Amino acid sequence: MVKLASLKQGRDGQLMVVSRDLSRAITADGIAPTLQAALDYWAETEPALQALYQQLNQGNCADSFAFNQADCASPLPRAYQWADGSAYVNHVELVRKARGAEIPASFWTDPLMYQGMSDDFIGPCEDICLADEAWGIDFEGEIAIITGDVPMGTPAERAAPHIKLLMLVNDVSLRNLIPGELAKGFGFFQSKPASSFSPVAITPDELGDAWQDTRVHHRLRVHLNGELFGEPDAGTDMTFNFAQLLAHVSFSRTLCAGSIIGSGTVSNVNRSTGSCCLAERRMLEILEQGEARTPFMKFGDRVRIEMLDQQGQSIFGAIDQQVTKYEAL
Amino acid sequence: MVKLASLKQGRDGQLMVVSRDLSRAITADGIAPTLQAALDYWAETEPALQALYQQLNQGNCADSFAFNQADCASPLPRAYQWADGSAYVNHVELVRKARGAEIPASFWTDPLMYQGMSDDFIGPCEDICLADEAWGIDFEGEIAIITGDVPMGTPAERAAPHIKLLMLVNDVSLRNLIPGELAKGFGFFQSKPASSFSPVAITPDELGDAWQDTRVHHRLRVHLNGELFGEPDAGTDMTFNFAQLLAHVSFSRTLCAGSIIGSGTVSNVNRSTGSCCLAERRMLEILEQGEARTPFMKFGDRVRIEMLDQQGQSIFGAIDQQVTKYEAL
Repeated sequence: MVKLASLKQGRDGQLMVVSRDLSRAITADGIAPTLQAALDYWAETEPALQALYQQLNQGNCADSFAFNQADCASPLPRAYQWADGSAYVNHVELVRKARGAEIPASFWTDPLMYQGMSDDFIGPCEDICLADEAWGIDFEGEIAIITGDVPMGTPAERAAPHIKLLMLVNDVSLRNLIPGELAKGFGFFQSKPASSFSPVAITPDELGDAWQDTRVHHRLRVHLNGELFGEPDAGTDMTFNFAQLLAHVSFSRTLCAGSIIGSGTVSNVNRSTGSCCLAERRMLEILEQGEARTPFMKFGDRVRIEMLDQQGQSIFGAIDQQVTKYEAL
Repeated sequence: MVKLASLKQGRDGQLMVVSRDLSRAITADGIAPTLQAALDYWAETEPALQALYQQLNQGNCADSFAFNQADCASPLPRAYQWADGSAYVNHVELVRKARGAEIPASFWTDPLMYQGMSDDFIGPCEDICLADEAWGIDFEGEIAIITGDVPMGTPAERAAPHIKLLMLVNDVSLRNLIPGELAKGFGFFQSKPASSFSPVAITPDELGDAWQDTRVHHRLRVHLNGELFGEPDAGTDMTFNFAQLLAHVSFSRTLCAGSIIGSGTVSNVNRSTGSCCLAERRMLEILEQGEARTPFMKFGDRVRIEMLDQQGQSIFGAIDQQVTKYEAL
């Protein structure tokens, strides 16, 4: 069991071990300089990181310091792979309806996935800096796994041991650019700018009973400008679990350690739990009230994405970001 | 001016400087351990690499050794970004025709691009190891750039200085998986397995007059099982040059140094130059003879992709790969 984070430093951050209650941290000096380096040699580094984590939780680390989420980069500030699924098919169905499209029956049996950019993630408390509100700026609250090395053709039944870490995601989307881009036929590109991840990545066993069948059984809490926007349960209505998503990714390729695979926007069929993105709420407004009333994000708007355990303690720390205007140099 | 390659070693290879005639090499000890590390600090490392290159070409490196392409990984064995364009729109038009689809007029003004996997490239002389011939295994001969750090919103007019290196590409495609995957609407995923790159990456100024307006004015030579399959000129019919492709990529995102951007399959309107992928020849057969006669690649088939200068000297070394059957563990 271990919780890890990356202190902002250089291109890849400096690896830290973070205490279970997120109050203290210590750099992983002598174990691995960066999270990618730790993942590259996980069999060797994980036991050492776990031992340091235990000492930190017991208050036995003289060199520890107060953990500050704002000092964190995304756990992998840049990664070799970011593949995002759409495991909550209920959400896909609603968003497609918003575009006037039906989903094929195969979407309930064959995961939908896109390859995203991974060379430059935003930090969990850094601004989402974009040039134009007219692009239709949206957040998407998700969960992601970080894998070890995964052989090609790994079936879902053997995928679970390759899941090394878990994080939360804000998969930023530019909704008004999506229809035109998808019409070109090659998927998202400009409509999916840099994403961000929770300050802390955790081993799945940190979740205890809430990690079952490679699903996370906790609510994902999304706040927009300080008001609760949604809190669906991430374990409910996840049509494909992470093992199935991983099998889909590895079908015709080997995965390098440090590959990130996302769940897609968390969404429950029970509408009273709210939504994890604006597009879904807008779709529900169209269906219920005839038109979308909730606008996309404006400069100055703030989104917060977090997950609490049964005791109300934050598990991953919070993604907490403001949208600001990008001024080209 | 410099030519670089990565000796197979660990996950990221060991950076080597290679002589202009590809006969000798020397490790870049003391400058940068890997190509990614060199690109991360290019302003500092490039002058040192150039000085070493000059010494090597003059025969003044006691520690140099015979350069062997088979010892090479792809110049970046894994990268933080691989985005592949379709700059030869003539090719896109033909391949779409093969799928029974027309291209919209906007394809001549707005580049088509997909995000590819970059976490585990195949070496230039390593097998293309895949589980099933029925997937419709095809090669695609392309050219790619490696970028430095690129600010968001970089216009084409200011993009050229961000192009640091050039390589050749074999963008492996699984043609029979593409129609079903594109129909899902999110672009390629399983149909684009690992690609490979030429043994050697070069600075653009190595091309002299053949590098004009961010296009490469040489023929790309593709051999299939020892027979010439195509040799279109890469500078002809490239609708979007690399500066335009780079502007498209950076529209809503910052690029990290070491990002790779591909040209898409090289293709000339003049059919006598042949093709750089099987799909294009098959389409021409359908148009001219009513049916596709050239099969996709079988296990044991070999593809070779190379570019020669005016003196017949190989510029990048050759991608030379056999297709073999992958047996899952």
